[in-house]
Amino acid sequence: MEPVTVSFSRDDNLDAPVLIEGLPGIGHVGKLVADHLIDELEGEMIAEISSLHFPPQVVVDEQGVTHLVNNKVYRSEKNGKAVLFLVGDFQSSSAPGHYILTERYLDIAESLGVRRIYALGGYGVGHLVENPRVLSAVNMERLRPEVEAAGGSFENAGSEGVIVGASGLLLGLGEVRGIEGICLMGETSGYIADPKSADNLLSVLSRLLGIEVDHTSLQQRAGEMEQLIARVREAEEAKGREELSYIG
Amino acid sequence: MEPVTVSFSRDDNLDAPVLIEGLPGIGHVGKLVADHLIDELEGEMIAEISSLHFPPQVVVDEQGVTHLVNNKVYRSEKNGKAVLFLVGDFQSSSAPGHYILTERYLDIAESLGVRRIYALGGYGVGHLVENPRVLSAVNMERLRPEVEAAGGSFENAGSEGVIVGASGLLLGLGEVRGIEGICLMGETSGYIADPKSADNLLSVLSRLLGIEVDHTSLQQRAGEMEQLIARVREAEEAKGREELSYIG
Amino acid sequence: MEPVTVSFSRDDNLDAPVLIEGLPGIGHVGKLVADHLIDELEGEMIAEISSLHFPPQVVVDEQGVTHLVNNKVYRSEKNGKAVLFLVGDFQSSSAPGHYILTERYLDIAESLGVRRIYALGGYGVGHLVENPRVLSAVNMERLRPEVEAAGGSFENAGSEGVIVGASGLLLGLGEVRGIEGICLMGETSGYIADPKSADNLLSVLSRLLGIEVDHTSLQQRAGEMEQLIARVREAEEAKGREELSYIG
Amino acid sequence: MEPVTVSFSRDDNLDAPVLIEGLPGIGHVGKLVADHLIDELEGEMIAEISSLHFPPQVVVDEQGVTHLVNNKVYRSEKNGKAVLFLVGDFQSSSAPGHYILTERYLDIAESLGVRRIYALGGYGVGHLVENPRVLSAVNMERLRPEVEAAGGSFENAGSEGVIVGASGLLLGLGEVRGIEGICLMGETSGYIADPKSADNLLSVLSRLLGIEVDHTSLQQRAGEMEQLIARVREAEEAKGREELSYIG
Repeated sequence: MEPVTVSFSRDDNLDAPVLIEGLPGIGHVGKLVADHLIDELEGEMIAEISSLHFPPQVVVDEQGVTHLVNNKVYRSEKNGKAVLFLVGDFQSSSAPGHYILTERYLDIAESLGVRRIYALGGYGVGHLVENPRVLSAVNMERLRPEVEAAGGSFENAGSEGVIVGASGLLLGLGEVRGIEGICLMGETSGYIADPKSADNLLSVLSRLLGIEVDHTSLQQRAGEMEQLIARVREAEEAKGREELSYIG
Repeated sequence: MEPVTVSFSRDDNLDAPVLIEGLPGIGHVGKLVADHLIDELEGEMIAEISSLHFPPQVVVDEQGVTHLVNNKVYRSEKNGKAVLFLVGDFQSSSAPGHYILTERYLDIAESLGVRRIYALGGYGVGHLVENPRVLSAVNMERLRPEVEAAGGSFENAGSEGVIVGASGLLLGLGEVRGIEGICLMGETSGYIADPKSADNLLSVLSRLLGIEVDHTSLQQRAGEMEQLIARVREAEEAKGREELSYIG
Repeated sequence: MEPVTVSFSRDDNLDAPVLIEGLPGIGHVGKLVADHLIDELEGEMIAEISSLHFPPQVVVDEQGVTHLVNNKVYRSEKNGKAVLFLVGDFQSSSAPGHYILTERYLDIAESLGVRRIYALGGYGVGHLVENPRVLSAVNMERLRPEVEAAGGSFENAGSEGVIVGASGLLLGLGEVRGIEGICLMGETSGYIADPKSADNLLSVLSRLLGIEVDHTSLQQRAGEMEQLIARVREAEEAKGREELSYIG
Repeated sequence: MEPVTVSFSRDDNLDAPVLIEGLPGIGHVGKLVADHLIDELEGEMIAEISSLHFPPQVVVDEQGVTHLVNNKVYRSEKNGKAVLFLVGDFQSSSAPGHYILTERYLDIAESLGVRRIYALGGYGVGHLVENPRVLSAVNMERLRPEVEAAGGSFENAGSEGVIVGASGLLLGLGEVRGIEGICLMGETSGYIADPKSADNLLSVLSRLLGIEVDHTSLQQRAGEMEQLIARVREAEEAKGREELSYIG
């Protein structure tokens, strides 16, 4: 078995200068934003990525049909702007797997002409945040002014931080290949999906992309998630547990 | 050393259209049913599978003779219906190993002309179940009506479930090869081997196979297991432990 | 780097019909017996085995000189009987590594004409044993009478036991190559090195080998170990800890 | 992806007879000394080493720019003495990775003509030490007198110690290649970075190298670290925690 399998469902010209990564992570902030953008920009799935570095399981959908765990590449070209998306339900289940998968993500990006990657994620601070910033990192110093102009903050720089997983390695291994990398991290408690954080991140990202996007459905999705969280919390309180559980 | 070794003990025509998987899992429901069917249908062992992805150990039999840990393929052809079985004592000891082993299981299935796989397992609910359902999943939507007609329930669909290990991957990776996959999961507490659950699963499966099977010895085996559990539980209570231990 | 490296220090005729394995395990019973036999039979080291499946460390000897972690093959030919020994300080640090290392041990055995392997170990019972038995397992049923005649017990058969690690796999993977395998396990508490257990095991083994061996130094070594254990225990009691710690 | 990637930034004559390793370890003693020597001897970075055996992450610098996790080789040639350094932020994230990375470190050393390696580290004793010794080990017995003459102690020999990770394997695997290896371990509590220990280690090392080095900035750096530790400790005490946390 190949360690990573990439299956394209189309083979016509799929090039795009930009890839947006929104794999699962802290507070699922990146995933929320990427899934929203795919909806708004009418993205179409063009490739599926499966790997023995993903968890060994299938997911069962609402029809009772199983689907191999995988990540997906979408592409949209609304208003003449081509954008690729890397989304899905899982990151690697092992440390070396993160490197192996990210190199394949970059192979795909290179083969489709990608010159810039936006890696989206959350920045967990361990407490609720009233006005969540969009903290940022870049893999080439010259990218910083553009990010700051769009509202990205670099106040986290200098705190000896690290960025773990696909988001971090897309910037690190991307730089080796000369691909620009910008990581946007919505400040968030880390305990719950954070609509304000995702909303703010979307604002900065859409300015960087030069694309106007409606935020309504993201706010709705976040609202539904908040209701779910509230119900879970009530159920937990009913059981007499007091600590806030991780929901993501 | 090859990561997986398959040794066939016969090389005549071993084809069969159907493979039934009953490897160990929750409540050993799948294993109970598969072992029972092999007995009833007079299955014959045709291949052994050993692998460095299994635990590094041998089992000692009643004569004091050691046997390398392995899984086995059986074949029966009672009343003109050829059926293959994949059974054994172990699943992979690592996440990537599940993928590697399942691809080999599918290689065997393909080479023997298998067009449909039944993956049997348990569906743990964490509490005793009076009337255990046979919850189901399929890897192609068109298989669902047939399963429902045989008594399989899809009430679990929509709960965002996953199927872990060989059962899940046989459906997920099997679909890629065009092999039909039906997973039948006997609802069970997850704490103890559940005779009712296995009995119900066998009913649904035999309808799907179009085979009539005597349930007596399965009920006996389950009865013996219940007695063993009762003795273990008494011994534990005698030690003053109150929590119900996992027995499988 | 090769996963396993074998360095022979001699290349003349090193054949021997028998290999005795005494790698570390429960109560270090096997190791105690094998090290004693090497002393008594004046064994000479003929090969060293290093591997990335061993722990990543060196040991520092009494002169302050480091030695790469490895296992060793010794050979003795006292009184015309050639015997090989597989001893050392470590087993594999991973599950697949056990398989990979054991296959290499068997490659060495086959290349030196070995037709029978004695795998020595301990059989932990969790409490002190007054008259420790030498419990046994074989990889071919026809070997059983010979072991019983030498005093090996098969009373453990039928308890659904497993033999983990190199000892188990030497029998299991050895059988595939047609090499006879006999596992002798000295019954022991599992908490402390057990001189009586090692002494009894040596008696059974020397009958099987047809070799007379002096037991004195083994009893001395065991006595020293008991004194060490007593000192450790006193120190622990002085600290007010009451549970018996694992010493091996 | 290659398991280990080595990128040289210069390809002119980079030979040196000596390599000093100061990767992270107990009390960061080795790292403190190596980083200090690079400063004092005006070392220049000549190569970067990245690997899927490192943690899957990037570090964010003070400008908000990401850097792939890697180790680095520096070279200095002050006063005509050429010295190489192996430093960085990480060791392997897995046991086999330690072997694989160390073999590559030795490939680099061999290709640059290195005949001796100094592996620097800490020797944790679990309590504060008034006058920390520089405990030593060598991979060839003939090196011992030279180390003792420079003030290295071998009082640890005979305590059945092991040296784990890159430091140990550089000596063990280096010996196989005929490269001299000397391990210097500053005695330290293991809880906090220990300026006295690093200071003493530097004295022994500079005697062995025949290089005079100013200690001032090491003492300053250690002083700053001590202040940081004091602040952390105060903060912890304010939170009512009493156990001393690991800071490194």
